[in-house]
Amino acid sequence: MKFFRVVSLDDALAHRGRFEVVGTEQLALGAAFGRVLAADFVSPEDLPGFRRSIVDGFAVQAASTFGASETAPALVDVLGSVSMGAATDLRVGRGQAARIPTGGMLPGGADAVVMIEHTEALDEDSVEIARAVAPGQNVVEPSDDVAMGAVLLRRGRVLRAADIGLLAALGATGVSVFRRPRVAILSTGDEVMPLGAELGPGQVRDVNAWTLSAMVEAAGGVPIRRGIVADDEGALLDAARGALQVADMVLISGGSSVGTRDLTIDTLEALPDSEVLLHGVAIKPGKPTILARVGGAAVWGLPGHVTSAMVVFEALVRAFVERIGGVQDGLLRPTRAARISRDLPSEHGRVDFVRVRLEERDGAWWAAPLRGGSALIRTMVQADGLVRIERDTEGLREGEVVQVQLWR
Amino acid sequence: MKFFRVVSLDDALAHRGRFEVVGTEQLALGAAFGRVLAADFVSPEDLPGFRRSIVDGFAVQAASTFGASETAPALVDVLGSVSMGAATDLRVGRGQAARIPTGGMLPGGADAVVMIEHTEALDEDSVEIARAVAPGQNVVEPSDDVAMGAVLLRRGRVLRAADIGLLAALGATGVSVFRRPRVAILSTGDEVMPLGAELGPGQVRDVNAWTLSAMVEAAGGVPIRRGIVADDEGALLDAARGALQVADMVLISGGSSVGTRDLTIDTLEALPDSEVLLHGVAIKPGKPTILARVGGAAVWGLPGHVTSAMVVFEALVRAFVERIGGVQDGLLRPTRAARISRDLPSEHGRVDFVRVRLEERDGAWWAAPLRGGSALIRTMVQADGLVRIERDTEGLREGEVVQVQLWR
Repeated sequence: MKFFRVVSLDDALAHRGRFEVVGTEQLALGAAFGRVLAADFVSPEDLPGFRRSIVDGFAVQAASTFGASETAPALVDVLGSVSMGAATDLRVGRGQAARIPTGGMLPGGADAVVMIEHTEALDEDSVEIARAVAPGQNVVEPSDDVAMGAVLLRRGRVLRAADIGLLAALGATGVSVFRRPRVAILSTGDEVMPLGAELGPGQVRDVNAWTLSAMVEAAGGVPIRRGIVADDEGALLDAARGALQVADMVLISGGSSVGTRDLTIDTLEALPDSEVLLHGVAIKPGKPTILARVGGAAVWGLPGHVTSAMVVFEALVRAFVERIGGVQDGLLRPTRAARISRDLPSEHGRVDFVRVRLEERDGAWWAAPLRGGSALIRTMVQADGLVRIERDTEGLREGEVVQVQLWR
Repeated sequence: MKFFRVVSLDDALAHRGRFEVVGTEQLALGAAFGRVLAADFVSPEDLPGFRRSIVDGFAVQAASTFGASETAPALVDVLGSVSMGAATDLRVGRGQAARIPTGGMLPGGADAVVMIEHTEALDEDSVEIARAVAPGQNVVEPSDDVAMGAVLLRRGRVLRAADIGLLAALGATGVSVFRRPRVAILSTGDEVMPLGAELGPGQVRDVNAWTLSAMVEAAGGVPIRRGIVADDEGALLDAARGALQVADMVLISGGSSVGTRDLTIDTLEALPDSEVLLHGVAIKPGKPTILARVGGAAVWGLPGHVTSAMVVFEALVRAFVERIGGVQDGLLRPTRAARISRDLPSEHGRVDFVRVRLEERDGAWWAAPLRGGSALIRTMVQADGLVRIERDTEGLREGEVVQVQLWR
């Protein structure tokens, strides 16, 4: 067995900085939701761009309403109506008004809008105003909302629905985003068979590749399943080289025996322009994780048990996919506060990740650690997420409140 | 202005049951992540399907190790090695052992595995065992993990990464899912212009359609932008009819004036086979929301201010998209516990939704309500989510802990 130099999770994460961000692509706005902005978005214009009413009512000079009240309303002449989406020729002077809908453009001369609820029409041409308005009241001035030149969205932001709306408001028909990182996935193991195959004795299907594919998708990457490789250094070397041709990152997983792990590290060391950055991380599960930098790309050796590989992906690999995908201002990681349902001892010096199922009892959330080892595939669909036990603690006490990191 | 009969949010949500779930489609497993399972998944076989070692070590009859200890190890003969992914001809008797890797298939006769760490090889053909094992120890029996016929995933489940892995483990090359609900989006308003247009005085771009499109995507639907309709009943009637031909649900938004709202309700009433289910919901913002059932499809009239339309979508429409999309066991809605940063009074009898920005101060999360009215588009990109103030409360006190519903 090869020598492990175990590093902390934080030290492992710090290697992110050694990997470059992928290139960019131009997308139509309709395809940009959830993608990562590749350049600051600077407003090309003022918004709204014109003086706009935010209520249905009457555009006036505020001075025309001074002192107006229910008992002593101000009487003004109605010149006509403002139409939506058009400038008006009307010019409102002292003692005059124009009907205006929400969103309508203020006529010349007007500096405020009286809400229709505070008026009473006497006839077509005159209205009583029962409440005074101040200059600017119920009006949005040009650039009150957005000023031309303002930086509205930062490079590296994962675009949300509201961002798409803002981009549309400012006429951005397209947007420059980082392309999705391509992540090649290799499975090792003489016992591993492809999905459609009939299984012989002692054989299993390629669970890891399919699970990791979906996790790559969830992290914003494009999974590229490159198939199954026999437990043979030459075959794994060829497969890794081929994967590096088409991908920005490579995940190797599948074998859970010591022999397979040694094979992976030997292969990574044998690749040209390769530097093994870490071999062993102080987390549980996931200690035998390997990371190499091969010609600029991250190549991972992940634990063979799929349940452990999922934890390592969530705790570590995901951050690297986001790094090369250009994410700076990501979505807040979904969490849920819950009480842990039983004592969970842990060891100093490593971070434990415990898979839990969330259960609601009497309106409170409880996080129930899953029983059954990492060899049981069934348990993976029962877990709603992970509870993290920090390295400097002795574990969690029943009833303690934890933040469950939800996964998809 | 039309008569409003305002109903509670819960009563509004209860109308979900009046809409049918969409049809199904068959997908390859690689396309199924995040989709909604259309039928219970019943395991077609046992898993692992064979007696499997969960450690690297020696397969033995447990009886051969009884009484073994560091000081009095048991000596056994090594018959050979089990290969991964294959049955072996070896047959392990009393006082015998076979080398076995993690995941290997137990040879005949063996009923337990001794971890390699608890053994010492004397030569090629014999090994000392320093710890006794019980029958079944370090072994997964067939169906220990999954038994044939077990219901593993329920209809209506949003497929997670682990689910994809489980389906792969059991040889499911494809899966039946509900198709994504098609949601047509119409914008009304003479002032609203398409994204690429040069704006004239008083005109604005179609923010609502683009924002709602992304929210439909986030809810698992397929947005179909059907363009902008002038404030004219005939035009809106034609546009709504056209939208109903291609979609399972229709969202009408854009006008924020009373006139536009009246136009929407008149149009909905004029559509054939139409029943207005609600016109007014006791929420803020979003009170003037309209829902009709037209020939089986939900047709919504949403508030004109995009910031309000977003809240109504999140609080109400989203649940209907999920309903017709077949979602039963959805992903847990992401929330974050935070302290509210200032007093927020509210009125009895309605549910308030307040847009907040999350801020981390000294390791604690604070939810800062956004200032600036719903007319300001800028505020929409500042909000990380919504805080809900229940109808029977008088509001929130500064420092009170709330659950922020995060949005994408």
